[in-house]
Order: sequence, then structure tokens, then C-alpha cells
Amino acid sequence: IGNWGNGFREFVIKAVQMGKSDPRKVVFSAKMGLALTLLSFLIFLKKPFEDLGRYSVWAILTVVVVFEFSIGATLSKGFNRGLGTLSAGGLALGMAMLSTLAGDWEELVIIISIFIIGFIATYLKLYPTMKPYEYGFRVFLLTYCFIMVSGYRTREFVNTAATRFILIALGAAVALLINTCIYPIWAGEDLHSLVVKNFMNVAVSLEGVVGGYLSCVEYARVPSKILTFQASDDPLYSGYRSAVDSASQEETLVGFAIWEPPHGPYKMLTYPWKSYTKVSGALRHCAFMVMAMHGCILSEIQAPAERRQVFRSELQKLGNEGAKVLRELGNKIKRMEKLGPEEDLLYEVDEAVEALQTRIDKKSYLLVNSEFWEIGSPQQHNPGQTQQDLLTADDHESSIPEVKSVSDLEALHSLATLNGENNHGNHRKQASLPAPLLSFGDNKEPNLDHESKTFESASALSLATFASLLVEFVARLQNLVEAFKELSEKANFKEPVHYQPPEILVAAT
Amino acid sequence: IGNWGNGFREFVIKAVQMGKSDPRKVVFSAKMGLALTLLSFLIFLKKPFEDLGRYSVWAILTVVVVFEFSIGATLSKGFNRGLGTLSAGGLALGMAMLSTLAGDWEELVIIISIFIIGFIATYLKLYPTMKPYEYGFRVFLLTYCFIMVSGYRTREFVNTAATRFILIALGAAVALLINTCIYPIWAGEDLHSLVVKNFMNVAVSLEGVVGGYLSCVEYARVPSKILTFQASDDPLYSGYRSAVDSASQEETLVGFAIWEPPHGPYKMLTYPWKSYTKVSGALRHCAFMVMAMHGCILSEIQAPAERRQVFRSELQKLGNEGAKVLRELGNKIKRMEKLGPEEDLLYEVDEAVEALQTRIDKKSYLLVNSEFWEIGSPQQHNPGQTQQDLLTADDHESSIPEVKSVSDLEALHSLATLNGENNHGNHRKQASLPAPLLSFGDNKEPNLDHESKTFESASALSLATFASLLVEFVARLQNLVEAFKELSEKANFKEPVHYQPPEILVAAT
Repeated sequence: IGNWGNGFREFVIKAVQMGKSDPRKVVFSAKMGLALTLLSFLIFLKKPFEDLGRYSVWAILTVVVVFEFSIGATLSKGFNRGLGTLSAGGLALGMAMLSTLAGDWEELVIIISIFIIGFIATYLKLYPTMKPYEYGFRVFLLTYCFIMVSGYRTREFVNTAATRFILIALGAAVALLINTCIYPIWAGEDLHSLVVKNFMNVAVSLEGVVGGYLSCVEYARVPSKILTFQASDDPLYSGYRSAVDSASQEETLVGFAIWEPPHGPYKMLTYPWKSYTKVSGALRHCAFMVMAMHGCILSEIQAPAERRQVFRSELQKLGNEGAKVLRELGNKIKRMEKLGPEEDLLYEVDEAVEALQTRIDKKSYLLVNSEFWEIGSPQQHNPGQTQQDLLTADDHESSIPEVKSVSDLEALHSLATLNGENNHGNHRKQASLPAPLLSFGDNKEPNLDHESKTFESASALSLATFASLLVEFVARLQNLVEAFKELSEKANFKEPVHYQPPEILVAAT
Repeated sequence: IGNWGNGFREFVIKAVQMGKSDPRKVVFSAKMGLALTLLSFLIFLKKPFEDLGRYSVWAILTVVVVFEFSIGATLSKGFNRGLGTLSAGGLALGMAMLSTLAGDWEELVIIISIFIIGFIATYLKLYPTMKPYEYGFRVFLLTYCFIMVSGYRTREFVNTAATRFILIALGAAVALLINTCIYPIWAGEDLHSLVVKNFMNVAVSLEGVVGGYLSCVEYARVPSKILTFQASDDPLYSGYRSAVDSASQEETLVGFAIWEPPHGPYKMLTYPWKSYTKVSGALRHCAFMVMAMHGCILSEIQAPAERRQVFRSELQKLGNEGAKVLRELGNKIKRMEKLGPEEDLLYEVDEAVEALQTRIDKKSYLLVNSEFWEIGSPQQHNPGQTQQDLLTADDHESSIPEVKSVSDLEALHSLATLNGENNHGNHRKQASLPAPLLSFGDNKEPNLDHESKTFESASALSLATFASLLVEFVARLQNLVEAFKELSEKANFKEPVHYQPPEILVAAT
């Protein structure tokens, strides 16, 4: 019993926490209670409205069924219910008249009609494009059966249909009024902030992945949740996963948002909600690259730490600039602000790409393993150069950033140690511990060693892959910016506040 | 009117096509009609069961609401409905007794109790772990209001609750019997074949991507659906997309499948449906690599065609072997067959990886652009060698495959031409037409040329990236095989048919 008590107390605490973190849920529940209470007054109605009182339960049922969290969902369900009831009512009245004409065969006509209508409504419901109206078909079928069956007993077909419809309309009206007038919760707003949140999440993931790669973060054992793409609280992973995984949620929200009337900052008759999903899709397209870059960290094929350091400042810069672009776009959507005509969000990230390219052009021999070249390795041509010389070949050029980054390097060392590994030695451990291979339990694989050796020689290429995925990520930003521009045009975002019209600039020069 | 008629005819044709492609939908609709028909006989009941007849509409409503496509969904909804009705009934009866004790304040007690119950039920429904029971909460609230309101008017609280419950139980029983006994549709089976289908789809995509990359397929204009990760019928894309995108569908199917009793080949009390999603997740983890490889084709950064040809046979072989592993795993799941203890699915794919690695070790200077190396390019050391020499440096070694592949090459040429481009010239077009950059409409970008040049120098690395992603894909296969082994153990798959026990092999040697 004490156990039950504890469980219950915990549950209550969690429920209260949910209310604190999202007060809208409390408000919504109170609104639901209020709507039900208002309608339950119907039962006290005296003559001449006794009929309404007797069937008042239909209004209450409608509220329970139609009252949804967001306005859009309530409207769409209300519409479905209304349309389903009306059309079924009409059809049922028609059929009822036909069946009375059938005389002795009345029962048969009723039963056959129920079978046929049940078949057709259910079949059409399964039609893919009919998915949003699934609920409408259900209500249609329900109402049809209800009117036919109860009408047959009471002989009050028209009355049943009319009363039912009036009460459903009343219930829907009360639900709608209360839901819209008191602290409305808009699906469109949820969609808006979901998209903004995804931008921020991908930015965090990108920074984390680039930082983690440069500090040689390694997974001693890749969580099996990542290996099976399930939710996990790994910070590098959860960021891009949320963006990749929110597609169906966005689909649902858009489905509701298009039902919502103009409101708040979304003052257009047909607000371009679909463009939000396009932007989000373009963001997803970028997030897939972050995911692939994270794959370089997860992989048992790892580039040597020293070589990563050679491209350190360029990769770091590019990652930071990429994240900055994402954040700026996210903030622009949040503030509903256009890009200024002179504003080039991608200028700095392009600079950073160019810097990385230049570095790669000069140093790309570090991205491959020259040991077995059939044309002879560069070391053979310059016998005086050692591996270390190759790594530091142009230190004179970049002495200042190199010095500057000593403290960074120390920080990275300690970060890597915190992560359980210090990987700055010359020999990486992947040959002895290929983490993902072990992740599914039994480590008695006979061919483990053989495989590791196979993969080992690809390690030099891993850095090239990471760099090239990062460059591809940046290339995809262009597409994202275009999608944003399309959205900002269609949704009529406001001009940026700090934007100076070009005329003034011309005058000043 | 003719237009409407045409639209209607088209609709009917499509509906008939749907029935032909999935006859289960027709059967399901007929079953629904049958259940409704059976229950509508209730209205003809005479004394002493007149009461059942009067409220027969509840049984029919239950069928409409509970009758779902799969057995699992029907069971889970039926359970929700039963539990919601029972608990609400009990609570309502208790409250009704309390309210009669309250005397003059009865109405107030009823109304306040409706508010409180409405608030609590709605609030708990929003609790994340309560999601599967959402429908139960709705029924709970509905029943509570119904009994309180109609009980107040008729003073027959117990009778209302009991009749309602009997009829709901009757409706649920009929729905369940008909749905299970006549041509049952199992969610578990759907899940099973969905997973198998995903394996095949990823295999097709993988082959397509590797083949496409080697034949230098290019998108003149990347479809914006791909750029925003929406459904598109691009064959390379739709394969892996279906695997990546089916997560929420699998989630739903598992949620239903766990409700289903043992049946057909799934003869276990608690069949490990969750392991299916794990396998599917591991497959998704592989599919992400195929997606990244497809990214190499979509990218405006493209490796020169001649260099791709150098690694042609190894890449092709690896792609084919990878797809073979996927197909074999898919077929094993389809046949519900274990891996034999001597069966090493990954043997050939590992061989192929090794071959590619060896090739890369020898030729990796082709994966980088040596023009600007600060340690001097290999060409400077071997001034006699031209670019062409570099490309064909070891032709004597591989003369036979080279000859063999001439016809392939011709086929590829024509394939590439079919795809609208012949890209085997030395100068690629990406500088003049970076397709994705143009995809969002206006091609008046001022900095287009500048950007293309920036990206161009990364082109040599693109091949390294592709190869390395393919190797990473293969590395992830290990994880997939482990997930499959786990599933095959837990689900007690049968031993493979053609498996020879090792003793015999030992005796034979």
C-alpha cells in the first residue's frame, strides 16, 4: 500500500510539473470543464424546451468529442461532425420515407440499407485522400444508424434528426466559443515555434558535432538508441534528431493550422502554412548532413587526432558560421522579419568555406594515406621530411593562430579526458575497440580483428569525409535561405528593423 | 454537370483500383456492414428484452467506433472503451448517490462534479505516457456526463449504467468476433511485411545510388521535393526515404500488434514486436548512409568522371554485395529463418571492402587535388607523368577487368546520355550550372559564380567522401546483422533449411 501511495504521489508531482511547464494544458482542461458545465444546465430546462432538455446529452457528447487542444483541430472536427451529421440525416430521412413505402418489407429495407451504407462509408474512409475526413465518415455512419434505428422505434424520424442536429450545433457552438474566446491555443503558433526550435536545435547539434570532432570525442560504446535511431538524450544527437523526426508532427499541425482564422501576427486569409513545412524540410535536408557528420564521430573509422588539428581553426570557424546562419534564420522566423535586400546571410560562411578549401588545397596530402601509393609517397621524394614535418609544414604561416589555440588545445585535452578518453596519442585505439561492433552484446565475433584492419586503412579518409560533409552542409544552406525567402515573401514578413535603405548608403559614400 | 460526372466516374474508378490492389479493404468494409446489420436486428426484439431493443443504438454506436482495420487496433479500442465505461459508470453511480444525499443542493453537486471530472480527465489525457489511453479518457468523460445527466432526469442511474454497459459489451463482442473470425487483418503481419519491404527498398536505393554515381548521373535540377524531404517518385530517393520515413507507422503498428493474440506464424504469448522496430531502426541507421551517398549525387560538388572510373569495379562490387546482404536479411525475416551458425553474411562484403581499401591505398592521390600542395605535387616529382598516366598507372595489373568493363562503360555512356547528360568530358559543368542553387526559383543570385568556384576545389574530395560513406554503410551492416540476430533469437525463428550442421563438414574434410 505504501508503494501504491508513493507511486500515486509521484504521479501527482509529475502532473503538477507538467502544468507548470506548460500552463496552457491547465487552461485547456479548465475550459473543457467549463463547456461541460454550461451545457449541463440544459437538463434543468422546463417547458416548452423540455425536448431540448431530454436530449441534452447530445450537446454534451459533442463537446467531449469536438473539444480539442488547438482551435484548428476543434474547427476541423466540428466541421467533420457537422457535415457528417447533416448528410447522414438527409440520407436517413430519405431512406426512412422509402422504407415506409416498402410496407411489409420495411425491416428488410432498413437492414439492407444499413449494410450498404456501412460498407460504402467504411470503404471510402480507407481512401488515402479521405484521411482528414476519417472522423466525418465515422459520424456519418453513426448518425445514419442512429436515425434509422431509433426512428423505426419511435416513428419520429424528422424529429430525431432535427433535435439531434440542433443539439450538436449547440454543443459545437459552445465548444467553439469557449475554446476561441478564452485563452485560445493556436496550432499555427505551435507550428511556428516548432520550426524555430528546430533551427536552434540543429545549430546546437552542428556546433556540438564540429567541436566534438575536433576534440576527438569518442563513444566508448555507441548507445544502441542511436544505432536504432530512437530518442536519446545525447546532446549532439537529440538536436538534429528532433528536426529530422518532427515531420509528422508538422504535418498534423499544418492540417489544423489551415483551419484557423487569421489571428495575432498571422493576419492573412490564407496564411502560407505549407511554406513553413517547406522551410522545415529544407532544414531537414541540412540536418541530414549534420547527421552524417555525427556518423564520423560514431564510426569506428577515425582520423588521427593530429591531422584533425591541422584543419582545426578552419573547421571550427566554418561550423560556428554555419550555426550562426541557422540561428539568424531561426530568429528571423521567430521575429517574422524579412531579409534585407543588402543582407547576405551567407557571406561569412562562404568566406569560411573558402578558407577551409584553401587549407585543404595546400594540405590535402594529409587526408590520404600515402604509404602504399604506386607512384611513390611524398615522403620518398622528400626523404628529409618526417610525418611530423608534414603535419607542421606551414607553421610559420599560421604561427599566431597556432599560439592562440594552445589554450584551446588544453581545454580540448581536458574535455576529451572528461569524455573518458585521451585520444591525442599517435596510435588510436580503434583496432582494439571498434565500439559499434560490440554494441549488440556478444563480443565473441571471430572476424573482429580482421574487420578492424580492413576499416583502419580508411581512417585517413575520414577527415576528408568530415570536411566535405561540412562543405556540403554549407552548400545546402543556400537552399534553406531560398526556402526562407519564399516563406517571408508569401507570409508577408515585416522589413528588418535595423535595415538601412541602400539610397542612404549611396549618399554617404 | 459533365465535369462533375467525369470527376465522379474517375473517383469510382480509383476506388475500384484501390480494392483490387488491396482486397483486404473490401473485405473489411463488408465485415463492418455485416456487424452493423447483425446488431440492427436488436431493434426488432420483443418483450421481455424490449429494454435492450430500446437502447440497441448503443451497441451499434460501439461497433462504429470500435471496429478498426486491424485486430490489434480493435482490441485496444475495445479495451479502452470498456475500461472507460466501467470506471466512469462506477464513479457516476457513487456521485449520484452522494448528490441525492445533498437534497436541495443536488443540482449544484451534479454540476460541480461534472466540472471537476471534466477538468481532471482532460488534464490527465494530456499527460504524455497516457497517449495510448486517450480514447479511454474520452469515453470515461462521455459516460460520466451521460449517466449523470440522463440519470438525473429519469432517476434510473443504475439501470442506465447497466443497460449501457451490457449493450456496449454486446457491440464490442460482435465487432470483435466478426473482425477476428472472418478474414482477420493483423497489425503484426503488416509490421512484418513493412520491415521486409524496407529492406528491399534500401537495397534497391543502394544499388541505384552506386550505379548512378559511377555512371555520373546528374540532376539538371534537383527536385525541390528532395530538397525538402517530401515524397517523390525518384527511384534512388524513394527507396531509402520509405525506410527513413516509416518510423511513426511502425510505432503505430507495434502499438496495435502487442494487443494481438498469438496467431499464424507468430505463435508466442509475448511476441517480440519491439525487436522488429529495433531491426528497422538499425536499417534506418544504414539508410542514412545511403542518403548521404545520394547527397554526393545531388551535390553541385562533383568528382571528375575519369577518377570515378578508376575505382569503378571495387565500388560497384561493394555496392552489389551490400545490397545482397540487405536482400538476404530481408528474405530471412520474410521466411522467419535464423542465420546458420556457420553462415557469415558479411564475408563477401568484407572482401569487397578490403578490395576497395587496397585500391584506395594505392590510388588515393587521385582522391585529392595535388595542384597546390605546399610540399610539392607528385607530378613535380615525376615530371614525365601526365594526368592521364596517373589515372591509368596500374592498368597492367587490372587489364582483364578493364577490358571486361568496356561494354559496361558503353552501357554507362548511353545510360548517362539517357539521363540527359554525357559527363565523361574532362570539364564538368558544375561551375556554370550548380543545380541545387537554382532550385528555388530566381537565378539572379549575384554571388553564384563566386560560390561555385569555392565549391569546385572540393570536387576531388567528393569521390573520397562517397567511398568512405560506402565503407561506413558496410560497417553499419554489422550492427544490422546483430539486431537481426537478436530478433531471430527472441522471436524463435526456425533454423535455415539448407543449413548443414558443422559435424558433417568436419567429417567430410
